[in-house]
Amino acid sequence: MTRRIAFLNIFRGHLYDADYQAVVDAAKADDTEVDVWSFPMSADGSEGDVNHQLKLHRYESLTLAGTLEFVLKAEAEGYDGFVIGCFNDPGVSEAREVATKLVVAAPCEASLHVATTLGRRFSILVGGREYIPPIEESVLHYGFGSRLASFRSIDLPIADLQKDPGKTTDRLIKTANTAVREDGADVILLGCTNYYGLHEAVQEAVGVPVIDPILASLKFAELLIDFRQRFGWRYRRAADIGE
Amino acid sequence: MTRRIAFLNIFRGHLYDADYQAVVDAAKADDTEVDVWSFPMSADGSEGDVNHQLKLHRYESLTLAGTLEFVLKAEAEGYDGFVIGCFNDPGVSEAREVATKLVVAAPCEASLHVATTLGRRFSILVGGREYIPPIEESVLHYGFGSRLASFRSIDLPIADLQKDPGKTTDRLIKTANTAVREDGADVILLGCTNYYGLHEAVQEAVGVPVIDPILASLKFAELLIDFRQRFGWRYRRAADIGE
Amino acid sequence: MTRRIAFLNIFRGHLYDADYQAVVDAAKADDTEVDVWSFPMSADGSEGDVNHQLKLHRYESLTLAGTLEFVLKAEAEGYDGFVIGCFNDPGVSEAREVATKLVVAAPCEASLHVATTLGRRFSILVGGREYIPPIEESVLHYGFGSRLASFRSIDLPIADLQKDPGKTTDRLIKTANTAVREDGADVILLGCTNYYGLHEAVQEAVGVPVIDPILASLKFAELLIDFRQRFGWRYRRAADIGE
Amino acid sequence: MTRRIAFLNIFRGHLYDADYQAVVDAAKADDTEVDVWSFPMSADGSEGDVNHQLKLHRYESLTLAGTLEFVLKAEAEGYDGFVIGCFNDPGVSEAREVATKLVVAAPCEASLHVATTLGRRFSILVGGREYIPPIEESVLHYGFGSRLASFRSIDLPIADLQKDPGKTTDRLIKTANTAVREDGADVILLGCTNYYGLHEAVQEAVGVPVIDPILASLKFAELLIDFRQRFGWRYRRAADIGE
Amino acid sequence: MTRRIAFLNIFRGHLYDADYQAVVDAAKADDTEVDVWSFPMSADGSEGDVNHQLKLHRYESLTLAGTLEFVLKAEAEGYDGFVIGCFNDPGVSEAREVATKLVVAAPCEASLHVATTLGRRFSILVGGREYIPPIEESVLHYGFGSRLASFRSIDLPIADLQKDPGKTTDRLIKTANTAVREDGADVILLGCTNYYGLHEAVQEAVGVPVIDPILASLKFAELLIDFRQRFGWRYRRAADIGE
Amino acid sequence: MTRRIAFLNIFRGHLYDADYQAVVDAAKADDTEVDVWSFPMSADGSEGDVNHQLKLHRYESLTLAGTLEFVLKAEAEGYDGFVIGCFNDPGVSEAREVATKLVVAAPCEASLHVATTLGRRFSILVGGREYIPPIEESVLHYGFGSRLASFRSIDLPIADLQKDPGKTTDRLIKTANTAVREDGADVILLGCTNYYGLHEAVQEAVGVPVIDPILASLKFAELLIDFRQRFGWRYRRAADIGE
Repeated sequence: MTRRIAFLNIFRGHLYDADYQAVVDAAKADDTEVDVWSFPMSADGSEGDVNHQLKLHRYESLTLAGTLEFVLKAEAEGYDGFVIGCFNDPGVSEAREVATKLVVAAPCEASLHVATTLGRRFSILVGGREYIPPIEESVLHYGFGSRLASFRSIDLPIADLQKDPGKTTDRLIKTANTAVREDGADVILLGCTNYYGLHEAVQEAVGVPVIDPILASLKFAELLIDFRQRFGWRYRRAADIGE
Repeated sequence: MTRRIAFLNIFRGHLYDADYQAVVDAAKADDTEVDVWSFPMSADGSEGDVNHQLKLHRYESLTLAGTLEFVLKAEAEGYDGFVIGCFNDPGVSEAREVATKLVVAAPCEASLHVATTLGRRFSILVGGREYIPPIEESVLHYGFGSRLASFRSIDLPIADLQKDPGKTTDRLIKTANTAVREDGADVILLGCTNYYGLHEAVQEAVGVPVIDPILASLKFAELLIDFRQRFGWRYRRAADIGE
Repeated sequence: MTRRIAFLNIFRGHLYDADYQAVVDAAKADDTEVDVWSFPMSADGSEGDVNHQLKLHRYESLTLAGTLEFVLKAEAEGYDGFVIGCFNDPGVSEAREVATKLVVAAPCEASLHVATTLGRRFSILVGGREYIPPIEESVLHYGFGSRLASFRSIDLPIADLQKDPGKTTDRLIKTANTAVREDGADVILLGCTNYYGLHEAVQEAVGVPVIDPILASLKFAELLIDFRQRFGWRYRRAADIGE
Repeated sequence: MTRRIAFLNIFRGHLYDADYQAVVDAAKADDTEVDVWSFPMSADGSEGDVNHQLKLHRYESLTLAGTLEFVLKAEAEGYDGFVIGCFNDPGVSEAREVATKLVVAAPCEASLHVATTLGRRFSILVGGREYIPPIEESVLHYGFGSRLASFRSIDLPIADLQKDPGKTTDRLIKTANTAVREDGADVILLGCTNYYGLHEAVQEAVGVPVIDPILASLKFAELLIDFRQRFGWRYRRAADIGE
Repeated sequence: MTRRIAFLNIFRGHLYDADYQAVVDAAKADDTEVDVWSFPMSADGSEGDVNHQLKLHRYESLTLAGTLEFVLKAEAEGYDGFVIGCFNDPGVSEAREVATKLVVAAPCEASLHVATTLGRRFSILVGGREYIPPIEESVLHYGFGSRLASFRSIDLPIADLQKDPGKTTDRLIKTANTAVREDGADVILLGCTNYYGLHEAVQEAVGVPVIDPILASLKFAELLIDFRQRFGWRYRRAADIGE
Repeated sequence: MTRRIAFLNIFRGHLYDADYQAVVDAAKADDTEVDVWSFPMSADGSEGDVNHQLKLHRYESLTLAGTLEFVLKAEAEGYDGFVIGCFNDPGVSEAREVATKLVVAAPCEASLHVATTLGRRFSILVGGREYIPPIEESVLHYGFGSRLASFRSIDLPIADLQKDPGKTTDRLIKTANTAVREDGADVILLGCTNYYGLHEAVQEAVGVPVIDPILASLKFAELLIDFRQRFGWRYRRAADIGE
């Protein structure tokens, strides 16, 4: 039994596709194959604009139709799973309704389930205060509001996270320590898929688990595929059950 | 990389050990080994008494010390994971604090995480109204209260669930249908580890995922082992981090 | 000071546009003008399909892009306000972020604000159990969960609500009486824009206010326009305020 | 169709009546008339005492009977609406039960409904920490607790707010900026009716809507009058509906 | 050390004063003295009117001023404690602010504290559905909403509770049994002070504790007096603490 | 009618037994007798270890079996009440299920009931941040989360609280003042039984009630005994009521 997963890199994918592919290849199970996909880069997508749109619901509306097309393409090509590669989880509900054969995983949802199993309270580190509102809505929507210790900002724009990994790691360690010691966080969530490659150094320095959302969503996708293939468990809505 | 898991059958284990072993062997990953363990049966444990104790917190206190001894034994013998085989999840917090090398999974916790990924609202089927209070406390403790559609009773004592599987299945189907159609449940949880072997027939008849807690906790244990072995993610408490 | 409002009829608009126009013209302030707009009817949109899609998040994704285009068109044509004419409030957040000059109102949001001012607890009447989940999410999202007395179904598909108004009214009265007497509802919300023209008969028969969501959203749009024109109060997000 | 509204200035009215009248006259609709009323000033009402009483429930009990008499007087004189002019909303429930013909609006309630339509989270600015408890109870009572970003104090007693409007404005701007940037407030509420005349300068400086509770309650009163006159929607309790 | 307590019978006191006196005399500690007080009966207070007013907030406003006068009288006469003898707890916050020397207890508050110590979930029995709203607000206000199993009505007006005690007891037993068996209530609260003398028969028949609110509030008053006399613990508000 | 109470000192009892006995003897009613009991001191129980274990659930598991043995011993010897002398309330549910004749009180539970009667919001002072998690779980479990103003640490290990009472008192006063003035606490809870003898000085300096949990639990035990002896009210679970 093998698993084929499409991982859609939503944020300026062509810049990070190779990195993402390396990250998931190192983390996947032996009998899993992952293909990283991404949107074509918009010609006029200046960094500032993209960063601004990430803060808005409109961001989701801009990528929603395209994401659903990728889901249908993955279904047509026989993939078993699909990961929506952005911590905002844009379109995860719609994708699950569109998909009839494959399972859908998303980084924020997966990270929250992992975090609440590994400790009582978690903090989410973000690049700036302005990224908090949509993530906070997700936390409440998924029902984990009572387990949230804090949001903490490292004050680094998303587009700069991989420019100087040492600097990013230093800020993550400093901020994670504050979250653990002042806010009582038992677990740290890195609140963007672009923090890849950094969780181990932070974890070692701080002493609590530090969740990389790419890794969490990949392993959750594998789990959901196993659930479906072995036990027939799949996403459903009571409203779809006929009278 | 292989995984060795000890699955402790808490409720009258010697009667069900062989069945549990067959269930987990059929569901485990190829590179996982599972050993089903159980308490020695108490000489004077009449059915009535055991059923009565299951309703009480005292049940947990009776098995807590013994469970922790099994955890330490599993650690000493090099197991990677430990499953507390009872839907009340007795001693899961304590076990995680005792364990330094292995991961701990529990049926109710695992089933709740699975259910809230597969649908919006879930119902839990129980053998009788009297089993609800400790499970309800767990649902609230884990933070999933806002996703609970209902508890529904099939009016069959836990000790009788496997006596006439056809009868049990019929009641589960009837009650699950009510939960889906009247309470809006998108997912059904079987609220005891002794419902093993029945989820597929119920699922097929009702049309929504039906979660068997043994299966959920086994796969969750595998996932937690992978998290620990691959990414270093393990149960921690902020309170344990030194100043 | 006058107000120009575009009212987008989202559900099979061409069938109901004339009725909607009559309803809003009778309810608007003297210095308000309202134009009812709608999507072109899909050629293959069978009733069953549309009803089915209404139950799903995908319904929102199907209409989202088109709704935002209508918002931009209304802005370009100098409208002061825009009403999203569907009780699911599809795209209300995105529309508010897209709009820079006009205000956006939505039926469910407006009805909830009205209802919680007129009484302590409200019930929402829907055409069938399957319409409840997205509306319930809206109630929770807007923060009125603690004021919800109940959902009650009148068991009439949305597409049939205006076929026999006497029959619909009878069912609304019967169901509203149950909500008031058994669930303690102080206010009744009609949970679809297609109940137009019926609220007065129900209200008179039952004795509590019965909120028609078209009327609530129209008057709320007028209020929001007044707020903006007179006091400069407009939709904002802290995240958009520069450092 | 015209609207006649009585606006009861509860806090040391005779000092502020003329100002209040000017504020509401500038903000009302053309077909609305507003008369500002107030209690006779107590002979021995030293500033300190009044400020102290404002912090207490007893404040409400002291003004409750008098407020209800004003409501009955307004009904007898044919007014359509009544505004309880204090941000504590003293006696709003009782007034609504006493009133059979007119509608009742209140500044805190109206401001909360306005704020939650204009943004996700709001902060309330108060004159001192000691004014927070009754307002916080109102926020919870009306059901908006999950939308509250913070309370922030400008450290100016209520009786001094209009003594040096420039100083008050400066403190409001400084505090509102903190609420927006540190607490994530999308909307600012001025937590006392005595902040009149200042919201525009603060709003312009800070960049988010700043709600003046006098204005919010006046326009809400107009809306409620329209609801009643046009659609028959009025305050009711299920408990009053006969069997 | 002795305790002197004034027990104000709010609902048609002169009819029940003697009964109340007998009830509290049998339940008080040896070193406690209790005097039952009541309002003079209104000349035109027909039963229907009084019952109707009990359902409304206005009921509280009608008795509030008088209750505070009784509190001041009790303080002047050197009482140590004051009980507000109505399950709606009318004016309890105001009374505590007025009182500087005596402690104030109230039946609903005391019963809720007792109930949540004796079991996990409680049900409140009321005379009719129409009495529920103000009591439900109290339950939420005091913070015990998550412990409420249900309200259940025995369909007997408050004024008739003592007319045929056998009939009242039968209905209480039947309804309490339903609350225990269907709603999972561990404790039953009698939701009116006029159920006096009946709790033991119901308790014996049903098998769970049945809380008589007169008894709960009397013993709570004694406890609060002891707290104040022995340990200096008294009602305070942070807002009253000077800078 | 007399009351005999066993007070189990859980934390390193033999060091504090004499002090505890003096404290309860000074606070008990005349017709109450209290015997302070404690575990034998573990031979190798270094201070560091004990402090560390106090932070963990495992602490509860270590003392649970022993505590239940003491409960049974107290029942056998005819005691009327039993106090679990640790602010973590370890085993209170289990003790209540084991006990059939005596009542069980616990310091945190009793203090929370007292605090919420004496004010709206409370703060809990602890020896260090690491003691917060289990206490916070208790606050949520008992249902008082909405009344919690804050936790505040005085940064003194539990084992040192009585070493220099003046120093402890100074820190308590300073921290309590912060809780009152910054967090709006109307009541202060001392979050450990080892703060005995200090509450009055803190209370006098700060001006709000300061709850000593030993005293609260002792008086609550007396109250519960009176409830049982006089009114037959005792701990029950609906689940124990036969069909």
